[in-house]
Amino acid sequence: MLRTRGCRLITLLLAFHVVSCLWPMPRSLTNGSDFLRLSSGFSFSVSIAEAPADLLEAIDRTSSALQSTLIERLVVGRGAADSDTINNAPTLSSLEVSLTGNLPVRPVSEEAVLPLEERQESYSLLVPSDGSAASLVANSTLGILRGLATFEQMWYVLDETAYTNIVPLSIEGDAPAYPYRGFMLDTARNFFPVSDIKRTLDAMSFVKMSTLHWHVVDSQSFPLEVAEYPELSEMGAYSSSQVYSMTDVNDIVSYAAKRGIDVLMEIDVPGHTDIISLAHPSFIACSEASPWQKFAAEPPSGQLRLTSRAVIDFTTGLLGAVARRLPSAYFSTGGDEVNTACYMGDLQTQADLAASGMTLEEALDVFVHATQDALADEGKAPVVWEEMVLAHNLTLSKETVVMVWISSEHAAEIVKRDFRIVQAPSDYFYLDCGGGQWLGNDPSGTSWCDPYKTWQKAYTFNPLADLTPDQHPLVLGGQQCLWAEQASPENLDSIVWPRAASSAEVFWTGSTGPDGRPLDVNEALPRMHDVRYRLVKKGVRAIALQPEWCAVRPFQCNINA
Amino acid sequence: MLRTRGCRLITLLLAFHVVSCLWPMPRSLTNGSDFLRLSSGFSFSVSIAEAPADLLEAIDRTSSALQSTLIERLVVGRGAADSDTINNAPTLSSLEVSLTGNLPVRPVSEEAVLPLEERQESYSLLVPSDGSAASLVANSTLGILRGLATFEQMWYVLDETAYTNIVPLSIEGDAPAYPYRGFMLDTARNFFPVSDIKRTLDAMSFVKMSTLHWHVVDSQSFPLEVAEYPELSEMGAYSSSQVYSMTDVNDIVSYAAKRGIDVLMEIDVPGHTDIISLAHPSFIACSEASPWQKFAAEPPSGQLRLTSRAVIDFTTGLLGAVARRLPSAYFSTGGDEVNTACYMGDLQTQADLAASGMTLEEALDVFVHATQDALADEGKAPVVWEEMVLAHNLTLSKETVVMVWISSEHAAEIVKRDFRIVQAPSDYFYLDCGGGQWLGNDPSGTSWCDPYKTWQKAYTFNPLADLTPDQHPLVLGGQQCLWAEQASPENLDSIVWPRAASSAEVFWTGSTGPDGRPLDVNEALPRMHDVRYRLVKKGVRAIALQPEWCAVRPFQCNINA
Repeated sequence: MLRTRGCRLITLLLAFHVVSCLWPMPRSLTNGSDFLRLSSGFSFSVSIAEAPADLLEAIDRTSSALQSTLIERLVVGRGAADSDTINNAPTLSSLEVSLTGNLPVRPVSEEAVLPLEERQESYSLLVPSDGSAASLVANSTLGILRGLATFEQMWYVLDETAYTNIVPLSIEGDAPAYPYRGFMLDTARNFFPVSDIKRTLDAMSFVKMSTLHWHVVDSQSFPLEVAEYPELSEMGAYSSSQVYSMTDVNDIVSYAAKRGIDVLMEIDVPGHTDIISLAHPSFIACSEASPWQKFAAEPPSGQLRLTSRAVIDFTTGLLGAVARRLPSAYFSTGGDEVNTACYMGDLQTQADLAASGMTLEEALDVFVHATQDALADEGKAPVVWEEMVLAHNLTLSKETVVMVWISSEHAAEIVKRDFRIVQAPSDYFYLDCGGGQWLGNDPSGTSWCDPYKTWQKAYTFNPLADLTPDQHPLVLGGQQCLWAEQASPENLDSIVWPRAASSAEVFWTGSTGPDGRPLDVNEALPRMHDVRYRLVKKGVRAIALQPEWCAVRPFQCNINA
Repeated sequence: MLRTRGCRLITLLLAFHVVSCLWPMPRSLTNGSDFLRLSSGFSFSVSIAEAPADLLEAIDRTSSALQSTLIERLVVGRGAADSDTINNAPTLSSLEVSLTGNLPVRPVSEEAVLPLEERQESYSLLVPSDGSAASLVANSTLGILRGLATFEQMWYVLDETAYTNIVPLSIEGDAPAYPYRGFMLDTARNFFPVSDIKRTLDAMSFVKMSTLHWHVVDSQSFPLEVAEYPELSEMGAYSSSQVYSMTDVNDIVSYAAKRGIDVLMEIDVPGHTDIISLAHPSFIACSEASPWQKFAAEPPSGQLRLTSRAVIDFTTGLLGAVARRLPSAYFSTGGDEVNTACYMGDLQTQADLAASGMTLEEALDVFVHATQDALADEGKAPVVWEEMVLAHNLTLSKETVVMVWISSEHAAEIVKRDFRIVQAPSDYFYLDCGGGQWLGNDPSGTSWCDPYKTWQKAYTFNPLADLTPDQHPLVLGGQQCLWAEQASPENLDSIVWPRAASSAEVFWTGSTGPDGRPLDVNEALPRMHDVRYRLVKKGVRAIALQPEWCAVRPFQCNINA
């Protein structure tokens, strides 16, 4: 009661004061501009019966972060000018964490992998300015996890004192505009150790992202150990030390789930599979054919012989074996860039088609259905890239989630066919663009998707462009993607962060901020600097977006400032 | 005698076999394709009376590298297929290191900072295939240092056995085509700790670069401690922990010199100096004026009041104080982007001009002469950016070295005026291009010098373009540059390496390789991969240029492969 009254009172008294922290911006926020210190004896008081272990671990991580990875405020002098104010400010001793509603109390890791429409991420956070207890309330442990990230981001440090300057603060029922807020990582063109993926998951969780889309294998390498098909990684990995063992995968999936992140794994078929030819030559058509341009989007060429019964059995067996071990409700079979010339020139495929009397498109439909049935048997909803809907005449289940990638202008056409979509358009969200030509022998070449996609460009993406209101529910969210032809552990953080935080806010906060104004790069820049400095303090090598001179002087480095 | 005869014999017998290692490519190279192992008891035998300590340290570093940072060969299987051949190969027990000629024996660190025309970097390396002693001979310790880098790069590792497959090898008198092979780092827009600079110097030395052009201060921050002017860094550094103390500078300069690198420091005047206004407001015109575009190339605006006697005395005093403590024969006063509107709108400057009866250009000439005289007093040759010659009508000493930056097409015009040049054109060598717009409030903005300058683009640079043979001696060399508006310790390595190795080869090897063919990105790519993997093994976060599948399959990822 008291808390509720407090809440209402504050809501009445407060306007929205500009904040230079919090990413993504909560959808509901009223706050003041008073200072408050974190008491040296600050503690989280958890009033949840049988609180799940992974929730308590999340609270412990937040507690450690408040002591070790806070940043100084990004203003000239880094906050020193407010030293007296800070030292004389009231102190906060406790954050009361509780669950409301009548949902069963489940571990964060269970709630993080529920079907998207069932995820409960809403939370309310109240931080009075007088030092009386703050409260974080949600109707799910996943919601509590989201609220903890917001709470951590409120605080700055000066001379070892943690403080905030945006209280009283009231966030009531902050919940994401879209459930799918992802990042896609390609671990096949170049390999990334488990530690790099975990660090990426930490950063994703800090900005409330919900999905790691793991493009784990491709034509260049097969770094995934599968018990039933050990030959694939034994022969297809770059080396025995560049393999995700089944233990590694479990470790990553569990690490992610505890941080509110679902791992959507992708095994891209029938294209992007040449590496399988090392273990099963007879399964692959046009393997390493020349010139590769004729048979594939990039070297090496090679696609599964989709007309072969043996290949269909292998593929469905592989998909089932991998999907079966994952908690996610989704699994991606890719399906992009299927090359027709490869099959047209393949004698076995042509013989199979002649024998069956099917066209290639009909055979592809049979193949895709077999893969989708295999996923259905494991209780997974299928995810595919856009060509499966736009380039081929297939009869896909409406359960299928379709990923837009070739162009943001393709979303409407897919939605028109009544499929749910994930927005991952290369013209806004591809992090590999602008790094130059990676193919050899092309001195003046640029990347296929120039220019570099800046955080600002990604931030201006409109998830609902070209869609009618009744179609809006079909947009599940979106993600930025890192294809790794020119990426490796050496530049993973710097090419991804803080840029990937752009879509995290676009898909959490939605089209307008809590003040009702449309999202705007000018308003966002100081907060983007803030989250970047926080990520660096947390050990993520996020790059500087401007000279530090600009980072501590909001708006003074604008064009026409 | 024996060695000489061996040399001649091998030269007669050998053709140039393709090598996939060595960066930069030696200008003279004959080699076979036999295998040779490094004996577990391998040692360097130094026959140099009173060998300088820093030469012995360099040999120790090479010795450690041979044991700890060799890479596996970049072929499918990473060399395992040659296991038997390697295990049955002869073993090399010793590399005999000696000096020839009659030059005085000097420490590497003394030879590295000599005037460019006096540097002796030539070396000869002979590695027989039968296990008999190899030899490294030079007429200077600096030459020995260059040869050690070549020797280290010959070796690969397989199952803890170090081996090479390019013997017998004979390099006779490999010497750089140009003495100035640099890299420029801006430490003012964002700060880089000493450890980052040292790691960069290690990488530079590994590819035989000779100069670190240190753009240490600018309008955004003054991270340089100067004993006589402590207020500049006290008030102008981003923070007290973001300052290069005089001890740090000595440490960096000495670390560099021991690795064959001269530190050319730059204090850019009269523009790019606004930060000085914090300590000396009266010295700066148009400080933080608005709109900044009218008064500077980027925020904040602010330039030294060059017409003021007090400012001239301060500037010459500052330059002298910094230059005096550095061993280099050169010092840069910058001089780029002097903004006329800033001075036209500055009352004091206008009053000074009226009183003196000088035009702004005449006053600039007086100012520049004063700075050059201050450097001459310290025995330094002045270095300036191209505008000092092309945009202003100044009477510069012909000792002046001019840096080309605005366009590669400007080189000829500067050379025509009989100045020596360093090639640093933004259209080939600016590493910051292509990262998007860093100024605020410009969602679709690109960088001012798009596109991204790939290693391939830099590699195709012709240092002698548009010049007549008699003008060639005026080209001292060149460098790639990192301006740090969007760079920080988080992406220093990934934005610089391996790209900066391109110019290291262009300016060492010159226009043609040892086989007489023009430098060619297609031939260079496997070696660029090789040096990139070596840099990573040494702890430099150099990025992947292609999928590893391509890195171990030379030429198969070419366009039209």
